[in-house]
Amino acid sequence: HCYPVSITSNLKGKEMKSDHNTRKMIHSIKVGISLVLVSLLYLLNPLFEQVGENAMWAIMTVIVIFEFSAGATLGKGINRGIGTIVGGGLGCIAAVFARSIGLGRVGNSIIIGASVFIFGSVATYFRMVPRIKKRYDYGVVIFMLTFNLIVVSGVHPDVKVWAIARERLLTILMGFIVCICVSLFLFPLWASDELHDSFVSRFLDLANTIQEECTKMVSEKENPPSAPSFNVCKSMLNSKSTDESLANFAKWEPWHGKFGFSYPWGRYLKIGAELREVATIILAVGRCLQASKEVDGFDGFIFLEQPMGSLRQSQMVVLQTCEAIGSKVACVMQELGESMKQMRKCEAKENILGQLKEEIGLVISKSKIGELEDGEVVAIASLVFLLMQVVEKVGELVKGVEELGDVAGFRSSPAS
Amino acid sequence: HCYPVSITSNLKGKEMKSDHNTRKMIHSIKVGISLVLVSLLYLLNPLFEQVGENAMWAIMTVIVIFEFSAGATLGKGINRGIGTIVGGGLGCIAAVFARSIGLGRVGNSIIIGASVFIFGSVATYFRMVPRIKKRYDYGVVIFMLTFNLIVVSGVHPDVKVWAIARERLLTILMGFIVCICVSLFLFPLWASDELHDSFVSRFLDLANTIQEECTKMVSEKENPPSAPSFNVCKSMLNSKSTDESLANFAKWEPWHGKFGFSYPWGRYLKIGAELREVATIILAVGRCLQASKEVDGFDGFIFLEQPMGSLRQSQMVVLQTCEAIGSKVACVMQELGESMKQMRKCEAKENILGQLKEEIGLVISKSKIGELEDGEVVAIASLVFLLMQVVEKVGELVKGVEELGDVAGFRSSPAS
Repeated sequence: HCYPVSITSNLKGKEMKSDHNTRKMIHSIKVGISLVLVSLLYLLNPLFEQVGENAMWAIMTVIVIFEFSAGATLGKGINRGIGTIVGGGLGCIAAVFARSIGLGRVGNSIIIGASVFIFGSVATYFRMVPRIKKRYDYGVVIFMLTFNLIVVSGVHPDVKVWAIARERLLTILMGFIVCICVSLFLFPLWASDELHDSFVSRFLDLANTIQEECTKMVSEKENPPSAPSFNVCKSMLNSKSTDESLANFAKWEPWHGKFGFSYPWGRYLKIGAELREVATIILAVGRCLQASKEVDGFDGFIFLEQPMGSLRQSQMVVLQTCEAIGSKVACVMQELGESMKQMRKCEAKENILGQLKEEIGLVISKSKIGELEDGEVVAIASLVFLLMQVVEKVGELVKGVEELGDVAGFRSSPAS
Repeated sequence: HCYPVSITSNLKGKEMKSDHNTRKMIHSIKVGISLVLVSLLYLLNPLFEQVGENAMWAIMTVIVIFEFSAGATLGKGINRGIGTIVGGGLGCIAAVFARSIGLGRVGNSIIIGASVFIFGSVATYFRMVPRIKKRYDYGVVIFMLTFNLIVVSGVHPDVKVWAIARERLLTILMGFIVCICVSLFLFPLWASDELHDSFVSRFLDLANTIQEECTKMVSEKENPPSAPSFNVCKSMLNSKSTDESLANFAKWEPWHGKFGFSYPWGRYLKIGAELREVATIILAVGRCLQASKEVDGFDGFIFLEQPMGSLRQSQMVVLQTCEAIGSKVACVMQELGESMKQMRKCEAKENILGQLKEEIGLVISKSKIGELEDGEVVAIASLVFLLMQVVEKVGELVKGVEELGDVAGFRSSPAS
């Protein structure tokens, strides 16, 4: 009951690319709209009379906090808000404190200079602490910026630091509100959707690649190495930092669509790590198959005397068993992908996996491998070993997706 | 003639960590000093009378462009400078153009609003083009910021846009000069050093791990899986993005120490990709060894009837040959690391590699594997296959480092 894995992944890739391009254009237009909205603070005289030159801060806010996804924008906006409030507050206190000591102009300057040095150094050190860097880096920068601007303004007795701080905060708030409204209500681009969809397509791509390699395993021809699906696997290996930042943005995003509050994004990172391991093993399978096909691919000694297509009967039996196992693994992966796509619980696949493990055991124990010749045994035994590892990892993935389904409240499938 | 691989990598790790911490503190103090220096524009009356409120832009510049490494600071500074000049210039032209058309206040506002929308959208789209995002993202942001601030100021007839643009540029230049002087001349932290050192330690760490696994291969005891060296390999797998940004920063850095202008940083990225592949294979070797030791590590069937330590004589012979080959591979890796560390050409290692390939060929062809029992053959044949792949990859690494040595002008070693 496993639907065939589509082999139109190339076509799907193009579709995804154009979709991504559309989203880039939407984002660009949204930034343009937000900029025009905050520019109205300058362009409309009644508004300009209210805020004056401080309107600059609204424009600056829009340019620096408007990010691609709603979560990133919200996160940066909140960081900026908190950084401004804390930095402005502390800056005012430091400025008033320096004035109240009454050491005169020079003493005042020295105290302010010292506070600039201390707060600047400490805040910079904090920025490099991994936990803070991950979520609050921008907030600390804004804290430093606001603190410095406010505290040094305080050295001139005619400057009202509270008034400056309040007005800047207000205009920053205006910029923030414009950003959030445009980002959330005008064709919102959610980091959570992007992360979720990328996981679904990773499952399906891996299923695809496994299926392709299984076909190659038993094919009579010497296939060319299939570059596209390998590139998919290779690009998956470097997904960690993208995943982490998307998960980070997704955490900032409010309830929307299918994702509730406190949706377990951390689990995705765990599943992502397992997917990377599966991709690693599949790349190794690919290398193994390729080494067995290119007779002189490895200089120095001949790996297999003939291409695998023309193996003896006993070898074909082993390979066909491997192909059958691999196809079932591909099915399980596809089921997992579909389960995530539709956010329904996947039917207990543990049975199938147990069965697959037994089948591999049979391949090994039935002395089939013993019948192979020395040179061939290395290639085929390695294939069996890698397949074993794929099965094991897919078992972990099944558990991971099941746990995710439990925590995230995937609905049960109608059958169960 | 291969010096023994040190097993004090843990100790070295601690040393590196404390070294990293020292550098973080140096960076923090440098930021503090720069902030105090630009604050003098506010604190010293004669200076403040010259620049006035525009001193704000100097402080802002220091806070946003002062990065950890000299290259990153220089890159951001240059980006900021060019972005400001281009944005300011275009902003002035647009403002003057809108005024000169003479459609009155409303028409003027509409033209300015339209230009804000168009430039904002187009620049945002450009920011997402991968090539621009990689090196010029910050410059485009600053372009947008300056353009907008200048063009909207132009709507008020009494505001002199040229004067604003010129003064801001001057104060930004002051901030930039302070940053660059402090960053380059006060305990400079070079991204190029960091990148180079991380490659040296990666070679040595991999050599270490290979040596450790070889020892485990023939040891009688059931060793616990050595987590530290695995973690080293695992962290190596995610090095791509760090490498890319460091190489990007290193390109901005001027001639210093051992690295000349146009030092081939791109080659490091290529070697890095190969190192990641080696790390992947070594992790697979580790899994293979572990699976063979934990008798019931893989549910469903028993992988090896006994732990490898108590294997029969014929098996021990194969394993000992593997151990010997692995040790030689570790030696080659260490030589490569030392060669990069001292920036001298490594002696032609091709001979050793050719020899290693022959040795593996002998292990396979001398029917030693045929003597093994079915269950064991999978584990040992996989080991042989993985070893073969390590040898092949190390061959590519040798070539990569040799090419790097040619392009970067490593000096010849005295022996050759």
